[in-house]
Amino acid sequence: MLCADAPASGLAGLGFGPAQTKKDRMSTIASVNPATGEVTDGANATGEAEVAAIVERAAAAAAPFEALGRTFRAAMLRAVAEELEARREEIIETGKRETALSSDRLNGELTRTTYQARFFANVIEEGAYLEATIDHAGGTPMGPGPDLRRMLIPLGTVAVFGASNFPLAFSVPGGDTISALAAGNPVVVKAHSSHPALSLLCYEAIKAAARRTGAPAGVIGIVFGTEAGAALVAHPAVRAVGFTGSLRGGQALMDIIAGRDEPIPFYGELSSLNPMIITERALQARAEEIAEGIVASVTGSAGQLCTKPGLVFVPHGEAGDDLVNRVADLFNELPAAALLDERISSAYEEVHEQITGLDHVTGLGIGLPKPDGGFFVRPRVVSVDAADIQGPELEECFGPSAVIARYQASSLEQALALLPSSLTATIHAEPDETAITVDLTNKMRSHAGRLLYNQYPTGVLVSWAQHHGGPWPSTNTLHTSVGATAIRRFLRPLTWQGAPDAVLPEELLDRNNSLVRRVDGVLRLPAPA
Amino acid sequence: MLCADAPASGLAGLGFGPAQTKKDRMSTIASVNPATGEVTDGANATGEAEVAAIVERAAAAAAPFEALGRTFRAAMLRAVAEELEARREEIIETGKRETALSSDRLNGELTRTTYQARFFANVIEEGAYLEATIDHAGGTPMGPGPDLRRMLIPLGTVAVFGASNFPLAFSVPGGDTISALAAGNPVVVKAHSSHPALSLLCYEAIKAAARRTGAPAGVIGIVFGTEAGAALVAHPAVRAVGFTGSLRGGQALMDIIAGRDEPIPFYGELSSLNPMIITERALQARAEEIAEGIVASVTGSAGQLCTKPGLVFVPHGEAGDDLVNRVADLFNELPAAALLDERISSAYEEVHEQITGLDHVTGLGIGLPKPDGGFFVRPRVVSVDAADIQGPELEECFGPSAVIARYQASSLEQALALLPSSLTATIHAEPDETAITVDLTNKMRSHAGRLLYNQYPTGVLVSWAQHHGGPWPSTNTLHTSVGATAIRRFLRPLTWQGAPDAVLPEELLDRNNSLVRRVDGVLRLPAPA
Repeated sequence: MLCADAPASGLAGLGFGPAQTKKDRMSTIASVNPATGEVTDGANATGEAEVAAIVERAAAAAAPFEALGRTFRAAMLRAVAEELEARREEIIETGKRETALSSDRLNGELTRTTYQARFFANVIEEGAYLEATIDHAGGTPMGPGPDLRRMLIPLGTVAVFGASNFPLAFSVPGGDTISALAAGNPVVVKAHSSHPALSLLCYEAIKAAARRTGAPAGVIGIVFGTEAGAALVAHPAVRAVGFTGSLRGGQALMDIIAGRDEPIPFYGELSSLNPMIITERALQARAEEIAEGIVASVTGSAGQLCTKPGLVFVPHGEAGDDLVNRVADLFNELPAAALLDERISSAYEEVHEQITGLDHVTGLGIGLPKPDGGFFVRPRVVSVDAADIQGPELEECFGPSAVIARYQASSLEQALALLPSSLTATIHAEPDETAITVDLTNKMRSHAGRLLYNQYPTGVLVSWAQHHGGPWPSTNTLHTSVGATAIRRFLRPLTWQGAPDAVLPEELLDRNNSLVRRVDGVLRLPAPA
Repeated sequence: MLCADAPASGLAGLGFGPAQTKKDRMSTIASVNPATGEVTDGANATGEAEVAAIVERAAAAAAPFEALGRTFRAAMLRAVAEELEARREEIIETGKRETALSSDRLNGELTRTTYQARFFANVIEEGAYLEATIDHAGGTPMGPGPDLRRMLIPLGTVAVFGASNFPLAFSVPGGDTISALAAGNPVVVKAHSSHPALSLLCYEAIKAAARRTGAPAGVIGIVFGTEAGAALVAHPAVRAVGFTGSLRGGQALMDIIAGRDEPIPFYGELSSLNPMIITERALQARAEEIAEGIVASVTGSAGQLCTKPGLVFVPHGEAGDDLVNRVADLFNELPAAALLDERISSAYEEVHEQITGLDHVTGLGIGLPKPDGGFFVRPRVVSVDAADIQGPELEECFGPSAVIARYQASSLEQALALLPSSLTATIHAEPDETAITVDLTNKMRSHAGRLLYNQYPTGVLVSWAQHHGGPWPSTNTLHTSVGATAIRRFLRPLTWQGAPDAVLPEELLDRNNSLVRRVDGVLRLPAPA
């Protein structure tokens, strides 16, 4: 399937397609209700000069913001959580109107977003993320060694592109923004054009928190519109880019970066198929639970999740038939779902046309008819034989759909070798199927960032051990956009050699024992408080 | 000045220029003595099919090599050190013949290289580099959280481009190779064409160590010639590239990577000016020591060091005049130096033509005349006014030369704002000059990876706190090629969710307390042995 979040080419990939391009030219980003198509006021597109002014204000804030230190930033992040909570009702109402996501989903997402802000406050207060390291001067086999002290420091102004599908947790107040601020960088967000009013509301919350705690003006900025996003990435003062969106949108940004005098790190979360493999024995043990689990994971949030399982391997045979029939029945009862915007909805329909035209694809189940108005689509599940897999069924489809691939041992092995890399890969097997679990793990490991066992990949906990990344094309391989280590993306190492105390950060002074450090090769935990 | 290690364009930048291209076409890489021009047998250029076969052998070795574990790899790295030591005499003799570097320098470099191999053995035995993290299942504000376990795993086959100027420590057995092997990756080295015989000798030492300890065949490979280097980077099984060389050579490799189906990380150490600033008071206190320090740092190893101070800011006035005169006198007494190869030598001479043609540049000192034969050049120091700096004097010049920029407060500030980013920046100031030291630190920090105080930037200790990197164009900003954290370049995170013990690495089993881990958010040191 084609990815519905991947428009044909170029700048259109940066956030919105032809429909919005017209609006952009009119200098407004309209706020559209996906459940009705109703248009209300959104935001003004940001002109190029204004983008430059916003970036320059951010860049001017970098040094004073960093100088305020970790304790200040932790307080500011907690204030961000408070300001968001204080606007919960308005945020949920605005979010519902602009995304058609449910109150429950948006409430849960806001809770996760404020939890994330407080989590990163804890991460920076603890300080291990700084990798503070001291090598005192001393003898080495190569002669006398100097005093060396290393620590991670902020990169500078970070550009963050909000995602359509997580209007809070991966958008203006999302993980990229929060981890970049936590690291000590000013942030300029390019708002996603499918929720401009919500973006403004969240921006105001962060700005209020920054102002209330005394952060320098400019530490948070926002721009609207495709051209503004392009100008943002091209601006020399921008030092890194965080992006969650389509592969083509990401590639358009990478092209802009390639044209800069200085290349900068690009952290893209781009495309993910999220394969799932179910063994015969797992089906025999818990077919009903698995059927319900698949349907919930594929269609939750209308399938608009980056970790939605898009391709599910089910064995041939009676138990597999039973599962497939049950999944089909569940799909047939599902209501139509409003997708996030007109482009995503129409791309989903195009995929439908394409996939049902393939000889080797069989329709299995389809949700209830669409109501009039809005950007509704019908959930859909299709089936292929794993031996036939080779084409569009290996690409992410954004929306409430999945491909079930029926396999036997040989066709599974052949199909797994064709899979693109994903954020996740999931194995359902019984506890005593050790050999097959190990074998499948070894086959999937090189193609995924997170491996799951008897669970479902949607739902990405913000925690220390989380990894939300994976080899290309899911991300650029080495980074995570969720979890404590997401902060590493917005930091760089600096080493001071033979430095007087006056120029050292307090974290590198000999007398400081308030954070974990490596001193003369030995890791030392902080002194008890 | 132009960087002598930066040929005009394209593939020529990958390692050697027109002179060698002809040899490459003849399918041999000649071994040339830079002190005499004498040519002896080198190595055969590697054909494209042979490159593919070598990469495929390496890729096949990846899983079994990783499976042997950290204890095995530490033993193998120590065996590499032993095999290199066992060949010390032959390595020094071959190195002298191919590089014209002194016995002292090559002996010191070999000691550093074997120290580096043993250092990385210690790093992986300790295991903190794995960032092992366990979040047990439990309640969260978003509901029940799963069991998540995160660790860094090897990327896969790594391509390493040997450097001309460190034929051991940054070449076949250098930091890129050793840190990639330590991380658990097979390595294929593209030998630098200015020391083919030495490259083969070092390759044989690593191969002997791998064989002796029982590593899978293919864990180390070597290729020769520009075209082979290009084919190596283009090969789909290569997962990362380490490169030390010219900016243009690096850009040629990045172009090849941009043409791959899957982009891969490129770790380039490319170009560095290494500014040094000396205050009036520092000169008053220790002019002679500083003069000697500058000359030693600029001309050691014939100035062919990536951290050579290329631009030295000296105050106007009498103390500055005295320093400059002393530096000039020292240069005038220096013998001519043989550079590493014909291309580097002729590029150095081209820079001489260009720089002396500039109106605002004044010659200060020049070394003794060149002997006949070989690739000798004369050390050279020139002077400019800091207010006039704007052109070629802001680019790295590879060889025994430096630009001295005479400043007063206003022209220093203006010149510093023009500087490109470097691996290092050095400040010489008196201990009680706190205000100026802090001010200069703040101005230099955003343009350097390592800040030095009253020391000299050449000489890069392999240690835990070392950082040998810096913002573009010195490297691609976020990584180091020297020190313990260089290993991070060749690893990626993987998280296991709800995984049975059978599929987990031993480092992530609950019962393992042999390495530092973060468990449920708390860093825990290993149990005492």
